[in-house]
Amino acid sequence: MTEAEFLAELRALPLHPAARRLADDAAVLPAGDMPATVLTTDLLVEGVHFLPGDPAGDVAWKLLATNLSDLAAKGAAPIGVLLGFPLGDDNWDRAFLAGLRTALAAFDCPLLGGDTVRQPAGGPRFLALTALGHSVAAPARDGAQAGDGLWVTGTIGDAGAGLAIARGAQGPQALLDRYRRPNPRLAEGRALAPHVRAMMDVSDGLLIDASRMAAASGVGVAINLAAMPRSADLRGQDGDSQAARIAAATAGDDYELLFAMPGDALPPVPATRVGSFVNGAGLHLTDAGTSVALPPRLGFEHHGS
Amino acid sequence: MTEAEFLAELRALPLHPAARRLADDAAVLPAGDMPATVLTTDLLVEGVHFLPGDPAGDVAWKLLATNLSDLAAKGAAPIGVLLGFPLGDDNWDRAFLAGLRTALAAFDCPLLGGDTVRQPAGGPRFLALTALGHSVAAPARDGAQAGDGLWVTGTIGDAGAGLAIARGAQGPQALLDRYRRPNPRLAEGRALAPHVRAMMDVSDGLLIDASRMAAASGVGVAINLAAMPRSADLRGQDGDSQAARIAAATAGDDYELLFAMPGDALPPVPATRVGSFVNGAGLHLTDAGTSVALPPRLGFEHHGS
Repeated sequence: MTEAEFLAELRALPLHPAARRLADDAAVLPAGDMPATVLTTDLLVEGVHFLPGDPAGDVAWKLLATNLSDLAAKGAAPIGVLLGFPLGDDNWDRAFLAGLRTALAAFDCPLLGGDTVRQPAGGPRFLALTALGHSVAAPARDGAQAGDGLWVTGTIGDAGAGLAIARGAQGPQALLDRYRRPNPRLAEGRALAPHVRAMMDVSDGLLIDASRMAAASGVGVAINLAAMPRSADLRGQDGDSQAARIAAATAGDDYELLFAMPGDALPPVPATRVGSFVNGAGLHLTDAGTSVALPPRLGFEHHGS
Repeated sequence: MTEAEFLAELRALPLHPAARRLADDAAVLPAGDMPATVLTTDLLVEGVHFLPGDPAGDVAWKLLATNLSDLAAKGAAPIGVLLGFPLGDDNWDRAFLAGLRTALAAFDCPLLGGDTVRQPAGGPRFLALTALGHSVAAPARDGAQAGDGLWVTGTIGDAGAGLAIARGAQGPQALLDRYRRPNPRLAEGRALAPHVRAMMDVSDGLLIDASRMAAASGVGVAINLAAMPRSADLRGQDGDSQAARIAAATAGDDYELLFAMPGDALPPVPATRVGSFVNGAGLHLTDAGTSVALPPRLGFEHHGS
């Protein structure tokens, strides 16, 4: 069964309205006049979401950061997290705890609880995290309209280059840090939430995530590769070819916010307009005015809802 | 690192007050005049919490039931659950979904969201579930006082005998069902919550869990094995010896509710008084008036907070 087939089966189960048909980053439970409760859960599997050689402290950071990024996409402030942890190697476990302490402090997010199990010998590590937050205006990912601008915070592609460095390529530490210690855009998410028509985080790649937002919203999306923000480090590493821009646009793990704003409205936080939503369907790619054929792979498919 | 050592390290991290020092079954977040939010998470690992040969539908049931049992202990009504699921074998995954559907319907609990990952070949399955509930009066496990009665719902030891049957012993289906399809005491939990001084579920064994409640409360506890309710099926299976009573009292997976009530107060639901809290510390075991030496193992240690 593919993930899409499994999700289709899950959608046939009794679903809470807050599950938003399992088509969003997080569950959003309204609470009358009070801020909505936002809940998201993620599994991280060794060899799939992180490399066996990744430092345990960085894995802890990433586990927390990726979940908080889902909260950021809902304009939520974190309340706390629940950890599911497999006890195994003492050194690894202690380094994980140290990294978790650093990350919880960095994001001002306390621990709410959790569960520990004994890690079976030989199997890959599985880590689980559930994050709880409050949001006064949680945007969905399906509200984009034709004519809206498509915007993104920060820079795109750094984490993809960082993954290559983690696998042995040469390159600057700053790119490796973007892969291993992503920064969820919590403050930006809260500032943006009341103003956007749709928002999600870029976890699997700009092109695939923008396509998902467009498909969920029932519109098409046109992206200008030349407008896509790339860091000086990334340009120094990968150069300025169209192939390098496509590589950045299809790399995952950026954890920037991707959002739709009406017409010519400007966002209240630093961000870059990279395209527009259009009538119709699908993804249309240009590079400084020239149409570009879609790459065979728009991003990663390994992440869940 | 043992689980206790790991928990001690976790307690040194930034903790939310709702985490209750990680010494309880669930996090309880007060919400002013509104019902408190109750959150709990559990990992189930193949070979640890369930047997590789256990039917997938039963694993789904158990995953849901064990989490909802933690809600029951807080007097909470389920709002919904988030599932972390590793996609692997199609037949297993489909049977799991069918069992999940049955269990969600049985407990009137919808799905709120989740995450799927690809199950790496060769490793054991890891399943994660987070349950969210609301409670108007969430008891802690640390409120028992000397002089309180110790009570338990239902019968004790059935699931332990069911585990032996799952491993190949002969015995009635009813006992196997108690192991594979436990019933969280949700209605009883809600009825009891406003009246108890302390409550928790019996997941690791009556003796160990009662000891934990006593230790958390700063008192001792005296349990009368002869008063412990055992089902007719279990008595038929294991007989009526003291060894059989001790086996039941130290078996896990009952998912009954264990609670403390003041003096001679009677609970509002069917339950059995099995002992009393006393000044001092530790567990004192008797069997129809005779003191009994504590068994070397009071229950299972594999479950987390």
